[in-house]
Amino acid sequence: MRLEELGEFGFLARLRDRLGGSAPGVVLGSGDDAAVLLWEGGKYLLVTTDAVVEGRHFRRQWFTEREIGERAARAALSDLAAMGGLPRGLFASLALSPELSVEAAEALAEGLEAGAAACGCHLLGGDLAASPGPLFIDVVAVGETEAYWPRSGAQPGDAVLVSGSLGASAAALALLERGVAPAHLPPTLRRRFLCPEPAFDVVQALQPLGKVTAAIDISDGLVADLGHLAAASAAQICLRADRVPLAAEVRAAARQMGGDAAALALTSGEEYELAFTVPRVAVEGVQRALAEAAARPVTVIGEVRAGRGLVVEGGPPLPAGGWDHFSARE
Amino acid sequence: MRLEELGEFGFLARLRDRLGGSAPGVVLGSGDDAAVLLWEGGKYLLVTTDAVVEGRHFRRQWFTEREIGERAARAALSDLAAMGGLPRGLFASLALSPELSVEAAEALAEGLEAGAAACGCHLLGGDLAASPGPLFIDVVAVGETEAYWPRSGAQPGDAVLVSGSLGASAAALALLERGVAPAHLPPTLRRRFLCPEPAFDVVQALQPLGKVTAAIDISDGLVADLGHLAAASAAQICLRADRVPLAAEVRAAARQMGGDAAALALTSGEEYELAFTVPRVAVEGVQRALAEAAARPVTVIGEVRAGRGLVVEGGPPLPAGGWDHFSARE
Repeated sequence: MRLEELGEFGFLARLRDRLGGSAPGVVLGSGDDAAVLLWEGGKYLLVTTDAVVEGRHFRRQWFTEREIGERAARAALSDLAAMGGLPRGLFASLALSPELSVEAAEALAEGLEAGAAACGCHLLGGDLAASPGPLFIDVVAVGETEAYWPRSGAQPGDAVLVSGSLGASAAALALLERGVAPAHLPPTLRRRFLCPEPAFDVVQALQPLGKVTAAIDISDGLVADLGHLAAASAAQICLRADRVPLAAEVRAAARQMGGDAAALALTSGEEYELAFTVPRVAVEGVQRALAEAAARPVTVIGEVRAGRGLVVEGGPPLPAGGWDHFSARE
Repeated sequence: MRLEELGEFGFLARLRDRLGGSAPGVVLGSGDDAAVLLWEGGKYLLVTTDAVVEGRHFRRQWFTEREIGERAARAALSDLAAMGGLPRGLFASLALSPELSVEAAEALAEGLEAGAAACGCHLLGGDLAASPGPLFIDVVAVGETEAYWPRSGAQPGDAVLVSGSLGASAAALALLERGVAPAHLPPTLRRRFLCPEPAFDVVQALQPLGKVTAAIDISDGLVADLGHLAAASAAQICLRADRVPLAAEVRAAARQMGGDAAALALTSGEEYELAFTVPRVAVEGVQRALAEAAARPVTVIGEVRAGRGLVVEGGPPLPAGGWDHFSARE
């Protein structure tokens, strides 16, 4: 069987079954947004890696090298927010063509540093290799937390919330693929696509409350990622699709393309907003804490029930959802 | 200017100058074998990444996927030994062709886990991406130490030591490039090339002594790596080339190829032995501690002096040394 037949998630599940094995000091291995290691001093170490391949995750003609680097850094760091953590450092391995200009390679590194600095850490190291093929960037984010937010902790009765608003990333991508020049994208879509903001403001505001039971960042699309969260928690999530907040300019972009804005918001990957669960009684305190911290708003978009899987209510018909790196339909 | 003109080390030096900047809690950023972060509880966190590209670092026809994975894991983990650390976990990002068989991809992951397990840790996570080009593996090793061994601490008067013996990796590579089938390599050369042993035995035996002033692992070749160590320490290293221990079967392999065995040992990269410095008076204690721990032997191969650079005495004429990923001469 070839990888594209089994698919990314199928392969990863099969791999976890085979490797399995827990190690002392390892709280969570693969299968969540970051690995969690117990560390001396009562804090957890978080480690996550994020691979970005030219022609697969981005096209060179859309972005400058600096933009590619900054976007890759922000995307990788978002996995720390998904675990309720804050960043401590960023590392990047780059496979670059020997014919690449030094200026372009430096711009890539400066973009990585800019993304790290925007999130409160720095580019601390990495590796360089020559690539005979496409540009490849592997970004490694290292963070810490005193209490991690797993995907697996959602309980029946919990409310499901999402930070910020959704749809901008997919709308920007759709416009780019229709030939709209990056400079001509509507400004919100462009900014959200190029400079996603990991939800560390939400993490900082909510960690002191200790109420988050499960969390994930939206990289594969809300529907797919809530599906991951439901599966990890062995619970059912009921998503009220009509409550999902749309990012500015998504409705207009959808109209322009003859698509459905709500469907975009539900399936848009690489949003890097947080979806998370808290006990229903804690929702008011969560909203208040975020307002007091001037963090981005969050919206209740569903609830956790006994059962399995994701149920979507009140929404448009969806295409088979989510992003699979090895699926043939890409 | 293109990357291949500036070279890997030139580019990295230029990058460090531009990014610079230190962050709270960061003891060492880029420029050593691993980054060192101060962590709660008095231990240092070590993080290193190691990128491996098909056609550049290995050829698929030489190795099975399992062997490629295991070798990549051991190579990355060696950077932790170079810092005087022990491993806590391994992560790997893989860019794979969608046409690759599931079995081959699994064998790669199993090899990574086997390499991790041989060093006392586990493969804890990573990322998967589809690659339209060559196979790309980025291995991330995370470790810890209570006292790190920087490249920069060598003092005039220190002795320079190397663990194990050298030359096997270059001899194996040279034979492979001459068309010798991997199965027909002399057994020591094959094992040392495929399954390098990071010097964690040396780390464990020497950490309690607290005598190591500087260390590096031999990935670019002894001459090049001692050059890095001298530069980082702002000191001169005098290498007695005739004292460098040769690995078994290197002499025979060199004879077979009409080359010089000592030159192979001095320039052989990917050896993953440790080169390190200790005060001259500590040498005897070091040797005793290693013998008591049944760790691999180490040999005094030179000394540190006031001055700059590397001086090689008693050796064969050397080709312009070291490994540069972007140089055109590869």
